[in-house]
Amino acid sequence: MKTFEEKTTVRYAETDQMGIVHHSHYPVWFEAARTGFIKSLGMSYSEVEKKGLLLPLSELYVKYRSGALYEDELTVSVHIEKLTGARVTFGYRVTRDKDCTLIAEGFTVHAFTDSNLCVVNVMKTHKEIYDMLYRAWKD
Amino acid sequence: MKTFEEKTTVRYAETDQMGIVHHSHYPVWFEAARTGFIKSLGMSYSEVEKKGLLLPLSELYVKYRSGALYEDELTVSVHIEKLTGARVTFGYRVTRDKDCTLIAEGFTVHAFTDSNLCVVNVMKTHKEIYDMLYRAWKD
Amino acid sequence: MKTFEEKTTVRYAETDQMGIVHHSHYPVWFEAARTGFIKSLGMSYSEVEKKGLLLPLSELYVKYRSGALYEDELTVSVHIEKLTGARVTFGYRVTRDKDCTLIAEGFTVHAFTDSNLCVVNVMKTHKEIYDMLYRAWKD
Amino acid sequence: MKTFEEKTTVRYAETDQMGIVHHSHYPVWFEAARTGFIKSLGMSYSEVEKKGLLLPLSELYVKYRSGALYEDELTVSVHIEKLTGARVTFGYRVTRDKDCTLIAEGFTVHAFTDSNLCVVNVMKTHKEIYDMLYRAWKD
Repeated sequence: MKTFEEKTTVRYAETDQMGIVHHSHYPVWFEAARTGFIKSLGMSYSEVEKKGLLLPLSELYVKYRSGALYEDELTVSVHIEKLTGARVTFGYRVTRDKDCTLIAEGFTVHAFTDSNLCVVNVMKTHKEIYDMLYRAWKD
Repeated sequence: MKTFEEKTTVRYAETDQMGIVHHSHYPVWFEAARTGFIKSLGMSYSEVEKKGLLLPLSELYVKYRSGALYEDELTVSVHIEKLTGARVTFGYRVTRDKDCTLIAEGFTVHAFTDSNLCVVNVMKTHKEIYDMLYRAWKD
Repeated sequence: MKTFEEKTTVRYAETDQMGIVHHSHYPVWFEAARTGFIKSLGMSYSEVEKKGLLLPLSELYVKYRSGALYEDELTVSVHIEKLTGARVTFGYRVTRDKDCTLIAEGFTVHAFTDSNLCVVNVMKTHKEIYDMLYRAWKD
Repeated sequence: MKTFEEKTTVRYAETDQMGIVHHSHYPVWFEAARTGFIKSLGMSYSEVEKKGLLLPLSELYVKYRSGALYEDELTVSVHIEKLTGARVTFGYRVTRDKDCTLIAEGFTVHAFTDSNLCVVNVMKTHKEIYDMLYRAWKD
């Protein structure tokens, strides 16, 4: 199973009046890691979209374990948890670099759709992308 | 079980290049509905925080059922799903007003903490807030 | 000169660790007010875009006068400051309802473009939209 | 005059339905660059805040010159434009790495305040921070 790590530094704009990162920013970090992960497989997500394949979210789950603070340097790791012709599930872990604290974990489930957001079977419509994801999953 | 409905109109800034609302904005709508809900119970969440009680998220789940579009008028309904001295779970449904389409569903789990983000038993530290939530849950 | 007022309640997600609204959210409020304003003129901005006219920002200015707080009820007023065939400038004021405090002022300048983001002369390409804006400016 | 460069890759969440980055994200990039800049001077902005000095925005200006796209690799450069005991002005330029296109320019003006957001004269209250910024300005 291939794993990719994306580094991010907490932005001031990501904090809220509790003094920690607002929970709505974690999905954005997950996504940035997913972008880097897909690019590392040899085809950027921009290219995937240009080929007429979109991966809108159908589910999101986050388990918050510790608050992240402004300027914290974080590692967001991502891998594929499950893959079918209809859906792909990515799993994530966010850790703080300086003390290895686990900040959050989660997953996102994505449908495969065409550019009209109609569901497709990626094994049939974009075999090369399915194969690319399959290798990342089974490696 | 008390239910509260918050209206929101999709902002341009909430869309992404897929032409639908980016998934990271749903937790923000959930929160806006939660704010209205708590206020409707007789004590605003600002007042709750002033009393030294915070409700940071420990879990977030969203099931996306249909894409929301710019200028869509939406109703976000919220209710309490579960309450203990340590945690409260809110449930949500987002529907589009003009065609009653279910856009998304989800839940958030919140810990009760003091202002240092240390877990407390709200039944002991803020009985009146526990009772307020309990009534909203059991009504 | 026609003026439109949009109401908004400060969301928790909009605060930062200073305890006030993060400055990056004001342009989003400006935009929500602009959306309501254009709709009030008889053609929604969604319809404007469907007619192949886009209004991307070319300039943004905000003067922050006072911090807005979580749950503050605000009024964002908007009007047209200037209009040519190439550009339109909107002006904004944000005030807090409960004490009439001026929170912020600002303006945005927008180019008129086609859907490829190439500049057009709106007087020639979409005369009815130019006229609609002109009336709102000169009323 | 010291200049600092921060790299950022455009996130999907930062795009809007026009297919380019929504204008409200530029102030967030400016801020990320400012964070890196201040840290490079020898004292992080987190430490500045811990010393009881805040720098809330009093003005923001952005001139948008070209649209940034998802996955674009950008450089945000920042420098100090002006410094007094009451205020500091930072200037910014955003360029796309692959073609050196200027994407945007702008500035932010910040008041110096204490933790109650009351204006202070930083030359008197935090001379070492004033000196640090002065050197970065005049270098």
